[in-house]
Amino acid sequence: MTRNPRNSAFAEEIEWSFAQQTIMNLIGARLGRVEPGVVEISLPYRADLAQQHGYLHAGIVTTIADSACGYAAYSLMPAGSEVLSVEFKVNLLRPAKGEIFEATAEVIKSGKTLTVVRADVVGVTGEKRELVATMLGTMMCLTR
Amino acid sequence: MTRNPRNSAFAEEIEWSFAQQTIMNLIGARLGRVEPGVVEISLPYRADLAQQHGYLHAGIVTTIADSACGYAAYSLMPAGSEVLSVEFKVNLLRPAKGEIFEATAEVIKSGKTLTVVRADVVGVTGEKRELVATMLGTMMCLTR
Amino acid sequence: MTRNPRNSAFAEEIEWSFAQQTIMNLIGARLGRVEPGVVEISLPYRADLAQQHGYLHAGIVTTIADSACGYAAYSLMPAGSEVLSVEFKVNLLRPAKGEIFEATAEVIKSGKTLTVVRADVVGVTGEKRELVATMLGTMMCLTR
Amino acid sequence: MTRNPRNSAFAEEIEWSFAQQTIMNLIGARLGRVEPGVVEISLPYRADLAQQHGYLHAGIVTTIADSACGYAAYSLMPAGSEVLSVEFKVNLLRPAKGEIFEATAEVIKSGKTLTVVRADVVGVTGEKRELVATMLGTMMCLTR
Repeated sequence: MTRNPRNSAFAEEIEWSFAQQTIMNLIGARLGRVEPGVVEISLPYRADLAQQHGYLHAGIVTTIADSACGYAAYSLMPAGSEVLSVEFKVNLLRPAKGEIFEATAEVIKSGKTLTVVRADVVGVTGEKRELVATMLGTMMCLTR
Repeated sequence: MTRNPRNSAFAEEIEWSFAQQTIMNLIGARLGRVEPGVVEISLPYRADLAQQHGYLHAGIVTTIADSACGYAAYSLMPAGSEVLSVEFKVNLLRPAKGEIFEATAEVIKSGKTLTVVRADVVGVTGEKRELVATMLGTMMCLTR
Repeated sequence: MTRNPRNSAFAEEIEWSFAQQTIMNLIGARLGRVEPGVVEISLPYRADLAQQHGYLHAGIVTTIADSACGYAAYSLMPAGSEVLSVEFKVNLLRPAKGEIFEATAEVIKSGKTLTVVRADVVGVTGEKRELVATMLGTMMCLTR
Repeated sequence: MTRNPRNSAFAEEIEWSFAQQTIMNLIGARLGRVEPGVVEISLPYRADLAQQHGYLHAGIVTTIADSACGYAAYSLMPAGSEVLSVEFKVNLLRPAKGEIFEATAEVIKSGKTLTVVRADVVGVTGEKRELVATMLGTMMCLTR
């Protein structure tokens, strides 16, 4: 698993791109760790992001996991690339309870065209951390 | 594929439950068709729901598809059930462009514990309709 | 959904390629319908293809579904292409019972690099036909 | 993640069940490590298990990964259970080259009804080990 970024400006570009994702602002998500092949996004719980029982909606769990996966893939792509989600699968392991949710994505296999990424989403309540979902996805590199 | 609802109040209960999903209100999603085994949710495009290129974020595409799948499964469950998303996979087929997005979920196999559901999400611009994503998911029935 | 083949020899090439898949011979699978965007593979049940309860093993259900998906994708690719499975998801809907199994794959979206395909696998016993599994997969076009 | 088996005879039962999976004998797969929550299955390459380019067919990669996942799930289930594959997703990361293939499955989340399992399949050639595929699947516990 290569961890040498081919684009030295990857971190700045990810920050810039994240700021363009208007949905991140709407839900209150924040970009965390940005390293070659690893990206974290966190999301404080809010009552207006919930499904019918008050837990974080699976689609919002997916929203932060997908962006984390996309940027983890992007961090290993050459300069001048664009990243696109091809597909992902999410297993919802527990009700998404927590004061804050942390999605951590890590590249499993970085290829020229396709990158496979895994993300875990943890619900944090005080000292307690629980894995609430895991994603396995495929991201595509487009050359601008 | 059975299409006989076992809960005669399923449509009212889905409407009520949908109204509890606060995320639906935040993003502006609306419940459409509710029939045994088939549920539609629509979402007008808004600039604050976008990824970095201005298209609807894949996580929001997933949000409406997942709720549509959950309620399609629920429509065939016995009274007193609760529905829970176990897992889903989404293929993003095209950039999610459109004035309005329609997620239509249909039950493929309804079981006692697990229900398998497929959802297509179409982007509509004027007369033009384009399939932008397809979901295949597993929903679980819990007895209250 | 385009259904115009770009490679007029697609059917002969699929037959030839199928004959190279030695696993198909080992398990006794047969190539059926080959049309632009649609390919069928059938497999008579044999007691040596089973899981612990005597049903067809999910991996063998997957084997015929995956080859059907790959060839359905191939049928719409330009001449000189090679097809490769990127990923697939399979829902196992019922125990895989039947005298013969039929996997029918159909292209949902054919792109330059990636093609998304769905396959249903039906177990046939006399007049009775039951959907035992459904696959949603992503296939990739490589240029030789 | 609990790793305390609830069925003290799990290892013997898995060995017995594996021996009933006739497909394992047909393809030459062998049961390896069997521990609470972790199961390995290995498969020496054979030319009659191949796709059109001579690599191990993705369906056979899936066959050993699925059985490994099922037994990893089973190892944590109570006595008198039966295990069933609900669904799985597989990413094929590289051509499945190797003299021998090793599928290692590990339980991510063990629940009363559903267990989520991940499996990696490695192709081994001499000293070289390459990850060729990864599976994320959902297994179900049935009470006999």
